[in-house]
This record gives sequence, structure tokens and C-alpha cells, in this order.
Amino acid sequence: MSGPVALPHPRTWHALVSLAIEEDVGSGDVTSSLVISPDAAGRAVVEARESSIVCGLPIAEAVFREVDPSLSFESLHAEGTRATPGQPLAVISGSMRGILTAERTALNFLMRLCGIATFTRSFVDAVAGTSCKIVDTRKTLPGWRVLDKYAAAVGGAHNHRFGLSDGILLKDNHIAAAGGVVAAVKTAISGAPANLRVQVEVESPSDARAAIEAGAEFLLLDNWSSEDTARAVPELREHALLESSGGIHLGNVRDYAEAGVARISIGALTHSAPAADIALEIEQMDTLGGVTG
Amino acid sequence: MSGPVALPHPRTWHALVSLAIEEDVGSGDVTSSLVISPDAAGRAVVEARESSIVCGLPIAEAVFREVDPSLSFESLHAEGTRATPGQPLAVISGSMRGILTAERTALNFLMRLCGIATFTRSFVDAVAGTSCKIVDTRKTLPGWRVLDKYAAAVGGAHNHRFGLSDGILLKDNHIAAAGGVVAAVKTAISGAPANLRVQVEVESPSDARAAIEAGAEFLLLDNWSSEDTARAVPELREHALLESSGGIHLGNVRDYAEAGVARISIGALTHSAPAADIALEIEQMDTLGGVTG
Amino acid sequence: MSGPVALPHPRTWHALVSLAIEEDVGSGDVTSSLVISPDAAGRAVVEARESSIVCGLPIAEAVFREVDPSLSFESLHAEGTRATPGQPLAVISGSMRGILTAERTALNFLMRLCGIATFTRSFVDAVAGTSCKIVDTRKTLPGWRVLDKYAAAVGGAHNHRFGLSDGILLKDNHIAAAGGVVAAVKTAISGAPANLRVQVEVESPSDARAAIEAGAEFLLLDNWSSEDTARAVPELREHALLESSGGIHLGNVRDYAEAGVARISIGALTHSAPAADIALEIEQMDTLGGVTG
Amino acid sequence: MSGPVALPHPRTWHALVSLAIEEDVGSGDVTSSLVISPDAAGRAVVEARESSIVCGLPIAEAVFREVDPSLSFESLHAEGTRATPGQPLAVISGSMRGILTAERTALNFLMRLCGIATFTRSFVDAVAGTSCKIVDTRKTLPGWRVLDKYAAAVGGAHNHRFGLSDGILLKDNHIAAAGGVVAAVKTAISGAPANLRVQVEVESPSDARAAIEAGAEFLLLDNWSSEDTARAVPELREHALLESSGGIHLGNVRDYAEAGVARISIGALTHSAPAADIALEIEQMDTLGGVTG
Amino acid sequence: MSGPVALPHPRTWHALVSLAIEEDVGSGDVTSSLVISPDAAGRAVVEARESSIVCGLPIAEAVFREVDPSLSFESLHAEGTRATPGQPLAVISGSMRGILTAERTALNFLMRLCGIATFTRSFVDAVAGTSCKIVDTRKTLPGWRVLDKYAAAVGGAHNHRFGLSDGILLKDNHIAAAGGVVAAVKTAISGAPANLRVQVEVESPSDARAAIEAGAEFLLLDNWSSEDTARAVPELREHALLESSGGIHLGNVRDYAEAGVARISIGALTHSAPAADIALEIEQMDTLGGVTG
Amino acid sequence: MSGPVALPHPRTWHALVSLAIEEDVGSGDVTSSLVISPDAAGRAVVEARESSIVCGLPIAEAVFREVDPSLSFESLHAEGTRATPGQPLAVISGSMRGILTAERTALNFLMRLCGIATFTRSFVDAVAGTSCKIVDTRKTLPGWRVLDKYAAAVGGAHNHRFGLSDGILLKDNHIAAAGGVVAAVKTAISGAPANLRVQVEVESPSDARAAIEAGAEFLLLDNWSSEDTARAVPELREHALLESSGGIHLGNVRDYAEAGVARISIGALTHSAPAADIALEIEQMDTLGGVTG
Repeated sequence: MSGPVALPHPRTWHALVSLAIEEDVGSGDVTSSLVISPDAAGRAVVEARESSIVCGLPIAEAVFREVDPSLSFESLHAEGTRATPGQPLAVISGSMRGILTAERTALNFLMRLCGIATFTRSFVDAVAGTSCKIVDTRKTLPGWRVLDKYAAAVGGAHNHRFGLSDGILLKDNHIAAAGGVVAAVKTAISGAPANLRVQVEVESPSDARAAIEAGAEFLLLDNWSSEDTARAVPELREHALLESSGGIHLGNVRDYAEAGVARISIGALTHSAPAADIALEIEQMDTLGGVTG
Repeated sequence: MSGPVALPHPRTWHALVSLAIEEDVGSGDVTSSLVISPDAAGRAVVEARESSIVCGLPIAEAVFREVDPSLSFESLHAEGTRATPGQPLAVISGSMRGILTAERTALNFLMRLCGIATFTRSFVDAVAGTSCKIVDTRKTLPGWRVLDKYAAAVGGAHNHRFGLSDGILLKDNHIAAAGGVVAAVKTAISGAPANLRVQVEVESPSDARAAIEAGAEFLLLDNWSSEDTARAVPELREHALLESSGGIHLGNVRDYAEAGVARISIGALTHSAPAADIALEIEQMDTLGGVTG
Repeated sequence: MSGPVALPHPRTWHALVSLAIEEDVGSGDVTSSLVISPDAAGRAVVEARESSIVCGLPIAEAVFREVDPSLSFESLHAEGTRATPGQPLAVISGSMRGILTAERTALNFLMRLCGIATFTRSFVDAVAGTSCKIVDTRKTLPGWRVLDKYAAAVGGAHNHRFGLSDGILLKDNHIAAAGGVVAAVKTAISGAPANLRVQVEVESPSDARAAIEAGAEFLLLDNWSSEDTARAVPELREHALLESSGGIHLGNVRDYAEAGVARISIGALTHSAPAADIALEIEQMDTLGGVTG
Repeated sequence: MSGPVALPHPRTWHALVSLAIEEDVGSGDVTSSLVISPDAAGRAVVEARESSIVCGLPIAEAVFREVDPSLSFESLHAEGTRATPGQPLAVISGSMRGILTAERTALNFLMRLCGIATFTRSFVDAVAGTSCKIVDTRKTLPGWRVLDKYAAAVGGAHNHRFGLSDGILLKDNHIAAAGGVVAAVKTAISGAPANLRVQVEVESPSDARAAIEAGAEFLLLDNWSSEDTARAVPELREHALLESSGGIHLGNVRDYAEAGVARISIGALTHSAPAADIALEIEQMDTLGGVTG
Repeated sequence: MSGPVALPHPRTWHALVSLAIEEDVGSGDVTSSLVISPDAAGRAVVEARESSIVCGLPIAEAVFREVDPSLSFESLHAEGTRATPGQPLAVISGSMRGILTAERTALNFLMRLCGIATFTRSFVDAVAGTSCKIVDTRKTLPGWRVLDKYAAAVGGAHNHRFGLSDGILLKDNHIAAAGGVVAAVKTAISGAPANLRVQVEVESPSDARAAIEAGAEFLLLDNWSSEDTARAVPELREHALLESSGGIHLGNVRDYAEAGVARISIGALTHSAPAADIALEIEQMDTLGGVTG
Repeated sequence: MSGPVALPHPRTWHALVSLAIEEDVGSGDVTSSLVISPDAAGRAVVEARESSIVCGLPIAEAVFREVDPSLSFESLHAEGTRATPGQPLAVISGSMRGILTAERTALNFLMRLCGIATFTRSFVDAVAGTSCKIVDTRKTLPGWRVLDKYAAAVGGAHNHRFGLSDGILLKDNHIAAAGGVVAAVKTAISGAPANLRVQVEVESPSDARAAIEAGAEFLLLDNWSSEDTARAVPELREHALLESSGGIHLGNVRDYAEAGVARISIGALTHSAPAADIALEIEQMDTLGGVTG
């Protein structure tokens, strides 16, 4: 839907938050225990150091709250909006020990999620004005499927199938194993669960026509040049939903969109988005005298 | 030690393998069930599509074996060696359904791990001939601490502390909270567990001298220019182990190394390494007629 | 596919096996420890006491093997075949303690799975000769989704969507919330992931026609009489895939099938199948003298 | 005790609630996300469509609350009371998305638990006026031991041992392994933990007498006709607690009760109770215009 | 039974083994990685440094095998036998890194389990020649219930109930809450599951007589002096099974046994047994040159 | 730090609390269900029966709250303070069933934790007035590493490394494997992570001198007599931090402290501390009439 992207249920990502705290904090934050008084309190801000699409603040909040339930966390930016360099994204108040112990883990989440959202947004912006949708893939990081796809959606992408059980995509190896595109498509369509639509990867216009003849309604034009794509689309889109993939980057994504495909899927959104530069600054400390023990 | 990097115990990463399979395969691979005969067998190779440092083959093997214990997996490259474009990294033989179901998850692991190792190696090569070590950080992906650090080590980096419980690093906020660098260092050294050495982040040469006077043996020169570093190192390294961090990239890393610091730590090794381009190709299928059932 | 139904990966049901053993065996089988010598060995058969479709032997095997890895288990019947009363389904050999401790848990699995498969088969047989498919639903027992659907498939049913994330079904409440069937269908089709097909529950022929006009290709005729169904099908099936549900039992299922719908979905397959009568008999004991220790 | 049956501690069943949500909702409810506005709120009632003993409302509440903690849930019936057809059992208010996403899972729990309680109550009613107790068995569904036994208790049954570790029952195979009923009973009684009482399965009156002579205080008359039972009870119950089992159904259960046994155990209570017909109806929706986002 | 004590199923203790390795080894054994070559192999013996009852070798084996599945482990002593000072209990061969990494965790298990078994045996020996049984309690260490009770059994004790669900013991507070011993006993006996026998804690002979009158068959004489016990036993044991507890130690345990009670339960067996002194010695190393890498 | 010892994060010990309740309570507290009315309420106190250092009240509170979230728990003693015999440590109010069900588990935690803290304090007191620190070891109970070390710290000890990954200790076997103390120390120091300090176990003064020459700054004088220690310390402590271990007990610990070592590590703190005698007394019951239901 065109409304705000719904945050995935914490059930689907909370284990990752716990694991992240476990691996970073382990048996305890030795440094903070040594030099920060248990009574020290303060206020910190999370801020963007470069222009970024904001994504992941509720997950960061969960990190701070799991490390120290007494911390307060206030989001200053809605998910999916753009933060300018230096803009504060959230304010955390409470125990200094809690803030400093949670800092790195919370930032590690934000750097990846804002990174994906920002990178995705650049693709979405590049095709602005066309009706083409940017779509993510299954090239997500192990353990991060739900969050990676959330960040892509926050960036403006549409989500492709979540995994192998909620979508059918006949790729080259399936087609070869089935004895050719016609046989593969017919077998898949006749046996497919009625709730799933069959998508077929095609290598050439003639391959595409064969798939359509066999009943395919949804094609993946994999590794086609934008020129080949532009030539074939007018005919093919009469019969099937078209998606391009392979070798598409910011420099040529608009060519594909203008060629008229309905969707462009890009693995790099989730496997190669650079981390966003996000930092935490302490704004105020109420007990500056150090350890009082 | 200078020998081969030891693979972390499967206990420390096997849950991530299971989670990755769970999130990608879910209740089953619908496509393969539709068009691949349960009897179809074949052989596939994993290959590098660009020059890469090989890393993660034992994890990829675990993915294939967990999806289908009857698959055989043969590594053709040692971890840490360089593969040229097109070179096969491993051969997998057995059930086509098993191979195709596991493919994406295995590749998602390899793309990240080879990506980190390859990116790290470029930093290690850039300082070759100096005695400076490249060191990783805690800016790893949540859930990936052990594997990210393994990949950095395979790439040639040295591992910094794993988390907050096995190292002491006084950062700016700790120092402020403790009432200044002298107070912070003294408090930390007197209270620190004897098995841990205290590292202190310093902002300037005078700050560094104060830390040393207070007893510090290990300094982090954070966000110093390479020129400032070069000027201060000769004096400081008489008294403490020196590490540079902040704003260091492939274009300037050698300047820091030549400035004489013992270590350079780089967060980008694990937060922003681009994915390596790794693919799986089917080389042979023994049952090409498709579904027989 | 039309071949044998693939057993779901143990990953998807093994936790249920462990949980079942945990809740039945707990800290140990006190009775067997008291009166069965640790050295006693024997052979037992699992047998059907009434005509049943066999389903679940690999799960039963997993129960015996988890309780005692040294037990051997030989299946005598293929999944999906019919066993006559008194026919042995499997033979287990080894430690008497192991066999008796695992007995109840293994039988509890078999009684349900054979029960579902047998009940489902009776529906499949009732529509034999028509092209209508029997389909299961989400009315499975909590914790049993994968196994319940496996048993329905072994019985001859086709599987509907596994859950809320891999299928779209607009039911009465969704339609009301969206402001009517036309609005609901249009909203859903325009926003749906391309890999999923939208199914619409319709209450009447005019409702069905409105859904089709709005673009629906897949309808659920919920709680229609077989007469109403027969009257409407010839027109509707030109435009959409048709599925009947609601109030359908063995006594009237053929009427619906002959009315010409493509699918009939039946919740009772998994929520009300009676347990099959399956028992374990000891055929031979090698140490009859009881406890020797 | 004769008071209300205590709800088992959530610790013992909450994992099943989470698992059930996980398997039904997975990565999200696609349909609701498409057509229900995140702002839509409403009120729904859970109602019985046939006469049922109410059981499981606290578990249903937990389902709704875990899917969406902001939902309110009000029970309108006490556990163990009878609901007439059409009677509302509970009212749920709040987000429409939350209500619709949780609906199926909550109903799947209620249909089984009310089903068991209702079926059990029919047996309890059938022996009303006698002093005979209806008792459940270990023939519960894997994963459901605690909830199945709770539902049986709510229906009016007494719980037999929970598993193999909290009760001793010498069955035919134990007796054969021990070298006969006398040896088995003597071995068991002398070795049994003092907190557990030994129960012995006997096949005939002479078998029963031998068991009593050997010291047995608690017998299971397995697969005896009600006539044989009636003849033997007057003598046997002077010496032991008597329980009947095997081949007992609603048509003959009173015969056994009137024969004078203290307990009748019935596996069908938990392995073959038909699901109760329970449904959820939306009573009111506050935002009928559909998606606003 | 009087035979060897059965090892609890690994299912009941393996999680503790994994947890123990996790907490000791964490992300890896830094010391061994630094100075032990991955190729170094050797042989080590586990030996008792003082006279001890051997207990826990299969658990120690599981530790070594989980740390390094290639290690071989040979037990040289049967569980429950006595080892003299310096006697080897087991031999482990294989990778030196594996042996040294697992050493501490394996020894921590053995020290406790041999400690409990040895301490228990001293009580069993102290009552030798009487018919009195030594019995353990629920005063075990959290997480160790199954293993603590196994060690007590290996030492010669009988196991009391495992927990609150498999035994009924009316203690002072239950009796007070129920309105006195007679009311408590009557309520408990009439409501108790038939498989469980009711035990009643009594403070004095008159209390004991009241309990017996109310139907109690099993008494706990808590905190009685041995003299009081000796005076009351001849009468009471005609009517009930008698167990002493409270204030009983090696110096007076025989007095209680000779007073004629059937059982003596002792919490100290599991809450205060001193650790046995067990060590691991390296007998042979095949690669003494250290790190070769 | 010299302030109060920080309670480890519940994340690090809560699983043990859950496990402990699971193993003691299992499917329910049969006794309390039989004789305590669900409406009975009361107040109980936890009290020390002998002089003890208080430790573990927050863990006990977590036990009571997990068994019954409606219970209130008020601590009357700060962790680390000394309770005299009979002194109340905490008051619990609420449901009698909840209090009695949780009692044993809560006490099992307190008996161990107070036991360790009390035993540790006796060592700390024995070296009072010297600058020597008492230090714990890795000889903790499997599953209890974090809590055992917390209790030792509450008793006044300093914590040694938590496990093999956060400290380097070259023991005899490492030294032998590395080819002698000089080679071992040099290898370790050159390869060690900069955040960890290398500790070396030495057998004699000459061994110690060799280690120091090789660069060691931190020595473990293992199994030295106090006389040998006293003779060697004046020279050695000029060059290294000194720790004694092995064969040290309350009777000789002060000799070692006065010999001038900085630290004394004692495994018995956590492997052989006797349980503290802690009990729960019901002070008031509001419903004395027993079961009303």
C-alpha cells in the first residue's frame, strides 16, 4: 500500500537484537564499570553525519531498552524521511552506563538500515516519473531477511518474495532440469499452488515468447541490455508482467525503467549498500565527578 | 599466530546457518518441488566472478549439508588464498533439489565473507613492508561478530577485542565522565582486571602525554591527521603502543603506517566491504527429463 | 507434482518430536527402569488395527531414534499406501527399555497423521473421476501446520497457502473494511506482490461477478449450497478459478465436485479427523527373566 | 480439588502460542496489510456456533496480545461453563489488523480446547450420580500434553499421570519382560520411589487376584467387558483401587461406572474429540473507508 | 533397581554441557591459539588426586567431544566404583588444542559429580548393615537437578521425587493452610492423583498418630532427635513408611538408621558436598616444537 | 571499582532461573494445588539461620516473580552486607500457592550465592590490612559462571578472567607444548591481542626469572610454599605482577598475603563453598480455612 511501511513485528527481529547485545556486551562492559559511576545520568543524541534516509529507530530503541529498561528513547524523525548532516535522529536519556553500553550495538543496526534505505532511495529517485518499481531480492544477509527487506521498503522499494516458500521463480537451472522453457512453464503452472503466480527467467525475446505461449504471465528478463529490453518490451508487456535484473546500477537504471518494464530488481540494495555514517553524541552528563562508589 | 587462521568453532556460527536456511527456505522450496525430480542429481561449482580472497567455504559447506546431508562438497581453494575470475572455489554433487534449495543461502554467506576478506586484504597490501598491523573493530553486523572477525583475519587483519567484556578502551565519553584523562586512566588502571590492558583514546599529543604520565601503555589516536601522527609518533611510541583510527581509507592508510604507528583500526572492513561476486553454476545434470513422479 | 509427496525437512518438525519426548518421558521412564533389564532386547511391530492410509513413519522413526539411537527401525509400508487391519507398518528392534519408552509418543504421532491421511483420502475418493481437487486449510493444530499439511497431502489433498504471508485471501471482514468487494479487489490487486495471486471470498453470484469485473481471477464460494454452485459455475469458471468451502462433508462433497468447481477446501481434514487406531506389539523378547542387574 | 481447575502456568504453554503465530503469520499478514488501514479499529466477538463447554479463553487472549499488545480482550464466560449456540465468549477491541491477523490462530486453539472439554463433559455427565471418575490418558497430541490435560480437567475429568516420570503403570509388556505378574509387581513395589504408587494392568480376575496377592493396590482392568467387570468388582475393590479402560465409549461408559470401578480412563478424550465450532465476528469497524495511508 | 544406575538421557543434560562450554570458551581459547600448533597431538589422563567415587565420565566425554569431535575418550573406571589417589579415570587422545580447551569445563563437571557421589557414599557406608535407605532431596543446584540426583544415585542414595509435580509432601505450611494435620491429610488423600502417594511432615509422635488416623501411609519425621525417633518408631512403622530428615550428618546418621526408620533424606548430599580433587595430566605430546604455522 | 558490585544483567542469568523453575515445578505443584486455596494469601520472610554475607536477593526476587508475577518482594538487606542468625533478608507477600511453589527454587539460589559470598569474605577478612587481593578462578559450576563470579565479587574478591577468550594464561602444558617458558612467553607476547596481558604460570624462582627475561609482566606462582614465595617476592615484584595459587586455605592465606604477592586466586571459593543456611518462614496467612473452591 502507499501508506507508511509497517514495522515488522518485533517477534521477527527481536532475537537478532538479543544476539547482537550478547555478542557485544557478553559478561559485561568492563570499561564503563570501571570509570562510569552507576549513578551518572545524561542525555545523548543519535545523529546522521551525512544525508541519510532514516530507518531502524524502533530497532535502536529496542537495543537501548533491552540493555537498560530504565532508559528513555525519543525518536525525532519518522522512518523513511531524509535527515540532513548533523541532524539529530533520536534522544536517549538516563543512566550513562546504559547509554554507553548499548551505543555500539544500536549504531551497528542504524548504520546498516539507514544505509540500505538511503541506497535504495537513490534508485527509486533515479526512476522517478516512470511507472517502474524498484524491487529487492533474496540477496540479503543471513539472519537479516526481515530487516533488510524492511529497510528496502522504507527506501521505497517493493518487496519481492520473502523466500523459497512464498513465490515461484523458474531460473535457468530449473528450466534446464525440466527440459526447456515450455516444459518447465507448463509443469509449474499446472502444479503450482493457486495462490502463487509463476515467474520465469528468460534469456532472449524468443525465449520470452515461448514462455508466454506456454502460459507464463510474469517474466524475469535477466541480464538483458537496456537496448534489447527496450526493443522487446512493447510486444511482451501485452502478455506478461516484466521485470529486469542483472547488471543494473545507478548509471543505467533509468534506461531500463524507460524501456518500459514494470519492475527492476537489484540485489545490491541489500548485499552492497554502504553503511550510513551515524554517531552518538553525549550532550549532557549530570554527574561529572566520575566514580563515586 | 602467523599460521592459518583457525575457523571459529561451528558452535559460534551454526545458529546463523540454521536461521539463514529457515528464513530463505521456510516451509519448502516450492519451485524446485514443482519442476525438479526428486531423483535428479548433478554437479555444481561455486565460482568467483572477480578476483577475490576466498573465505567462508566451510560455512557454505555447512549450509549445503544442513539442507541436504547427502550432498558432497569439495573445497578447491584454501581459505585466505586469492581466486582469479572464473576460478571454481568448490564442487557440490548430489541431489539437484538440494543444491538449488541451498544455493542462495550459501552464496549470501560467501559474498559477504569473501567481500570482507578481499577488502581487508587491500588494506593489508597497502601497508606491506611496514611493521604496521591492520586491525578490525566492533563495527560488525549484529549477529555476525564471530564471522565478520574471522573474515577480517582471513584477509590479514588482526582482531581487536571481541566485545565490551574482553577489552578496556577509554573513549571520549568515558574520559569526560571520569573527570578528564588523568583521572580516567588512573581509575581504570587501578581497577582493571589484571588480564586486560587499558587503551586510551587521545585527541592530541598533549592529551597523549597526559595519558602516558597517568600510566597508559596503549593509546588510540582517534581522528588525527597523518601529518600530526607522523610528528608525534617518534616521542609517543617510546612509552606506549600506538593505534590510529578514524578517517582512514585506502588512499591514506600507507601514510599512517609510515608515520610509525603499530596498528591501524578500520571500521569499514566490516561495515562497508562490498559483496564479492560469487555464483553457482550447474555443470552436469544426470536426469534432464525433468519431473518423473 | 503428481509424484510421491516429499517429506518435509526434519528441520521443520524435529522440534515437535523433541518436545513430545520431553513432555512424555521427562526425567525418565520410571516403570521401565524398575522392571525391564537394561540388557533386555526384543522386536516390536507397529500395526494398524483398522484400514488406514499410512502416514508418518519417518516421524515415528525419528521418535524411536531420539529416545534410543541404537534402535533399528524398518518401514514396511510406503507413505500414502493403504494398510489393512492387522497389517504391520514397521518393525523396531533393539533395547526393550528404548522401545517401551518411545512407544506412546511414536503412536501419538502416527494416530494423528494416519488419521488425517485416511480421512482426507475418503474425500479424495468421493470426488474420484471429476477434475476437482480437495484442498486443505489453515485450520491446523497450533504447532502442527507442517505435519498436518503433509498428512493431508499424503491423503491426496492439495495444499492451500501455508500461512498469512504466502497467500492473499480477501474474506468478508477484509471486504467490509475496504468498503466493498470492488474496492477491496482493486486495492489488493494493485498492491499485491507480483508473486502472489489474489483470492476473493464471495457470497453470491452477483458478488462474484463484481469481483471478476474488478479483476479477480480466483474466487472462494463460501457457504454456497451445491445447487447455487451448480447454477453459477458455468458462467463464472470462464473468468476465474473457483473454490468451494463451508458446510461440505462426505455426504455432499461429490455434489460440489460435479457442480464443476476446481477446488474444494475442507477445514475438517485437519481439525476433526478421527485418530487412526495404531498399536505396538512386542513380538519377541530376548531376555525374559526380567531384571538381572 | 473440587474448585475451579487452575490454568497451567503460561510458562508451560506460551511457547506453543508463539510457535502457532510464527507458523501462521510468518513474515506478515499480506492480505491485511493490503486492504486494512493501519488506523482501522473495531470490535469483534468470539462466539460458539454450537453448545460447547468453554475452555481456552486465556490462551486465546495470549494469542491476541502477542500479535498486538494493544488489543483489549474481555472474557464473557468462565472456563468450564456451557455456552449455548450463538453466545459470545469474548470481546476483542482494537486494531482491525491485529484482530484479523490473530483470528485464525486463536480460533484454532479454542476449537480444540473447547472440543476436548465438551467431549469430556459428555462422558462425565454419562456417569453422573455414580462415584466413578472419568480420567484422561497419555494419548494426547505431541506438544499439547499440558493443554490437552487442562481441557480434559475443565471438562470434568481427573488427570492421570502426566508422563512416564510421575507414575508407574505395569503394562502387558512390562509384565512379560519381568516374568509374570507376581514377579513384576514385587520388583516394582520394592524398587519404586516411595512417592509413587504402582498400578498394574490385569487381563482377568485371576490375574487381578495374583497382582493383589503380590501387593498391588491399584489395578487397571484393560479391555474387560462391562459384564466381567461387574462380576469381579465386588471382590477386587476390597483390596485395590480399580480403573477400567479399553473399548469404552459414550454408549457403554455408564455400564462400567455402575459396575463399581473407581475410575474409567478414555484415550479418545484427547485423541479423537471433534473440534468445537467457534467463530469470530466483526461487530463494529470504526474506519470503513479502507486504506487511507 | 539394584543394578547399575542408568545414565540420564543426554537430552536431559546436554544443554548444560553446551552452556558450560559457551561460558568458558566463548569466542575461542586465546592462549591455546597462540602457543599450541593446530597440528600438535597428545594424550592426557584424567586422574583422581584423592579417594573418590567415580561419577560423570560420560558427561566429561561429551564435553571433550563437543569441543572437538575428533578427540577419542576412553573411560577406565565404571561409574560408582572407587578410585584411589592417583588412579587414572580416563584417557583422552587427539589434538592438544582440543584437549586443553575442554579441560577446565570437563573437570568442573567431574569435580562436582564425583564430589556428590563420594559424599553420598560416606552416608551410605555409615548405615551399612541396616535396612535404612539414604535419600536425596530437592536441594539441588538450579540447572543441575538431573545430574545432582544421578550423582547421588551413583553414590548409593535413592532418589526422592524429582520435583513438585511428581510427589506430594505436606509440609508445615501446607498443614497450617489446610487447618491442621487431619484436614490436610484428608483433603490431600481424597484429591490426590491415584499414581501419587501422600507424604506428611510431622513434628511429634502425637502429630504422627493424628496423620495416620487421617489415613497417612508415609511420614516425614522432620527435625526429630534420634532418641525421640527411636522411641516412636516401633509403634509408627506398623502403620506408615517412615523417613527422617533435618539435622542429620555423618556423626549421627547411624543413630537414625538404627532407630528403625526406612529412609533418611539429606539435603547436604547435593547442596554442600565438597568438590572432589580431579586433575588432567598431559602424558605425551607428539609435536613439542610448538607453533609451526 | 570500590563501589557496590553491579548485579550482572538479567540477560546473563535469567535462563538459569527459568530452567530452575522448570526442573522443580514442571507441570505444576501438586501438593499446593491440593491443599492451598487459590485465594489464600500471606506473607513470608526469607531469613538467615547463621551469620551470612547476603547475596542473590535480586535473583530470588526473579524466581518469585516468574512463578507468580503478582507476588511482591521486598529486600531488607543490601547485597554484600552481613546478616546475623535469624535476621530477615526479604519479605514476600501475596498468593500462598505462589510463595510455596517458588520457595525451594529461590532458596536453592540463595543458599549457594550467600554460601560463596560468605566463604569468600572469610578469605578477604583473613588478608585484611595487606594490599593483597583475593581472586576467583574458572573453577565455577557449569552454567553458573556469571553468578558464581558475582557472588565472589560480593564477598570481596576480584574477578579473574571470565573465560578462555578474555585472558591469556600460559600453564605448564602450554609451556611444554611451546618448547619451554622462554619460547612460550615470546610467542604469546608477540601474537597476543593488544588488549590482553599475558600471564605465565611459573614453577620456581629461576623459571620466574626466565619468564621475566622473555618479557612477562604477570606471573602465577602455582603451588609454591609460602616460604618460597616470601623469599622470591622482593626480587620478582620489581618486574612483574605476582599471583599465588594452589594449596591455599584459610589457615595459610595470610602467610601468602604477607609474603607480598599482589593477588591470591582460590578455586575453592566457587567449587567448594558450603551452602548457607537460609530458610523461608510463613508469617501470616489470611485464609486459614484451607480450600474453599
